[in-house]
Amino acid sequence: MIPPQDRRSLLRGLGVGLAAAAAPAWAAPKDRKLGYAIVGLGSYATKQIMPQFAQCASSRLVALVSGTPEKLERYGAEYGIPQTHRYSYADYDRIRDNPDIDIVYVILPNSMHAEYTIRAAKAGKHVMCEKPMAVSSAECEAMIAACRAANRLLMIGYRSRFEPYNRLCIKLAKDRLVGPTRIITAEHGFNAQPNQWRLDKPMSGGGSLMDIGIYSLNATRYLTGEEPILVSAVESTDRSDPRFRTVEDRIDWMFRFPSGIVANCVSSYTSPHNRYRIVGDQGWIDMEPATAYQGQTMRINRNNHTEAGPTPPPANQFVGQLDHLSECILTGRQPIVPGEEGLRDLRLIEAIYRSAREGRAISLG
Amino acid sequence: MIPPQDRRSLLRGLGVGLAAAAAPAWAAPKDRKLGYAIVGLGSYATKQIMPQFAQCASSRLVALVSGTPEKLERYGAEYGIPQTHRYSYADYDRIRDNPDIDIVYVILPNSMHAEYTIRAAKAGKHVMCEKPMAVSSAECEAMIAACRAANRLLMIGYRSRFEPYNRLCIKLAKDRLVGPTRIITAEHGFNAQPNQWRLDKPMSGGGSLMDIGIYSLNATRYLTGEEPILVSAVESTDRSDPRFRTVEDRIDWMFRFPSGIVANCVSSYTSPHNRYRIVGDQGWIDMEPATAYQGQTMRINRNNHTEAGPTPPPANQFVGQLDHLSECILTGRQPIVPGEEGLRDLRLIEAIYRSAREGRAISLG
Repeated sequence: MIPPQDRRSLLRGLGVGLAAAAAPAWAAPKDRKLGYAIVGLGSYATKQIMPQFAQCASSRLVALVSGTPEKLERYGAEYGIPQTHRYSYADYDRIRDNPDIDIVYVILPNSMHAEYTIRAAKAGKHVMCEKPMAVSSAECEAMIAACRAANRLLMIGYRSRFEPYNRLCIKLAKDRLVGPTRIITAEHGFNAQPNQWRLDKPMSGGGSLMDIGIYSLNATRYLTGEEPILVSAVESTDRSDPRFRTVEDRIDWMFRFPSGIVANCVSSYTSPHNRYRIVGDQGWIDMEPATAYQGQTMRINRNNHTEAGPTPPPANQFVGQLDHLSECILTGRQPIVPGEEGLRDLRLIEAIYRSAREGRAISLG
Repeated sequence: MIPPQDRRSLLRGLGVGLAAAAAPAWAAPKDRKLGYAIVGLGSYATKQIMPQFAQCASSRLVALVSGTPEKLERYGAEYGIPQTHRYSYADYDRIRDNPDIDIVYVILPNSMHAEYTIRAAKAGKHVMCEKPMAVSSAECEAMIAACRAANRLLMIGYRSRFEPYNRLCIKLAKDRLVGPTRIITAEHGFNAQPNQWRLDKPMSGGGSLMDIGIYSLNATRYLTGEEPILVSAVESTDRSDPRFRTVEDRIDWMFRFPSGIVANCVSSYTSPHNRYRIVGDQGWIDMEPATAYQGQTMRINRNNHTEAGPTPPPANQFVGQLDHLSECILTGRQPIVPGEEGLRDLRLIEAIYRSAREGRAISLG
């Protein structure tokens, strides 16, 4: 049993940070809400992101960019976006002339992230870009340089960093609730449906690792607060499966961190996974699902006893993410997940692929 | 929900195999119970193994071998073993003259397994040997050769193969309850107490992998029914920790199997782990604890719904293991975990160490 006073102590200091994402304290006046243009009206944009603006304190949806006129018409009408704020890809650079647009949120296939981020920066806009940031670390570097040259902020859509259970896990690991972390296991995967851009390497840049395995990868970094110094990876793909003609199915890897922590990571396009576990010398903290849109569940094992973890103050991870960038712009701060964070992941993704391809451990950093 | 008729179907065919370990059907007449000599009166022998003979159908405890006269006196009295059936290590070869001893069960430090197995075989006795079978594959080969030359059976103490939840998992994986297996994760570890033979490489042959990681290793083989074709390992040991002057702390590895299954395995002497998960394309089967002395717990996830797994017919894994070898001797069968099974694990252990040492994936077989 975690006694009530310990539970309070576990949560102490967490409320402030979490509340900050949605609290009235930093809700800017309505006319200071920053305007987002959504680029790419696919499923994630329309089903997960766009409905969230209604709850945002510092952000509003002001423009749409799509190559499909029917989508512009449908979602434009649904969200009250006037014709003047609807853009085709050919029109895209005209966003520079629209002062209502402060931020461009790039939710396109991975191979288009770099181009549409750089064009947004050149149009004088701040950028939120979905993960993976791009299909290569070179592209990431170009994106960072473009935003820096334009004096605009660049943030990557690592929503789990705004999800309260993940934030609590970071704190509990840092506070050594189960002792110093020794092992992390992180597993992400799903059964990929055929015939989608994710399975087309020119569009996606890679397979399960770029799409879902990146959650395992990023979690090991935010749960340790360290950067890996060694990676060893093994790929397993049935190339006769028509889904995997150009991209990998499973690619699993191990990281070693400077403190000695080892992380075991799963990435799969043919099996369902969404969990991680932080194992210290005195027990473990388990999250399953760990990085889902909702339903996070935490269990804690100490002294050979397992129980439900504490419940953090509720917060909407999507709202937290959207408002964080707005707030950073309003206050002149850097996002907690800037372009450099996406670049680090891409460098590691490249090292994972290289390790699997060359059949050897790769030293990093 | 798994409907009741499905639950019955899940268990079908399992009852027979499990019951076989303890069922009256093959309980030999009392005077046919085979006699075991226990060699090495440490904690595992005295606390876990020796109390089980009372429940055995085909096995009885008839002799003790120890280097500590006080232990021979204490346990000899407790189990009614006469002076004539108590041996020191110097006396050990005299077991050949004791017809009450059919089987020698070697429960010594790993480095002594080969010598005491080979001497038992030369004394005309069948042998049960604890895992790891020995400290090298060369020793395993010599043990197998010695038992073969003496026309005696050799079995390795893989008790989980007689534990009902593990047997059920093997069946459920084979029956593809959650679809064909894609990923297995297997984690074993505990916080090693200082100053014990397990931490002395000349006695143990290695660290956590030889002692507890072997459960992760062996599970991936019995849950897949396949032999790995590739291994990639990463070690992480704090050599300034006095426990780890000669042996490794953590050594984690990945296996790739011929069907494409990938296994991610943890072995640790500084963190608590006892679990495995079989992930198919339609869900997963999770066991935690998986290979403990008792308390196995199974959860099954299908169609995004998680529930408790079915309950197999109860059976005592220790009794099942002890009686299996007796029954094999009585009926002329080979054990399901013969010396060759221990040899396979030692070859894989050697490959894991080599992969970690050389920093590269090792192709097998």
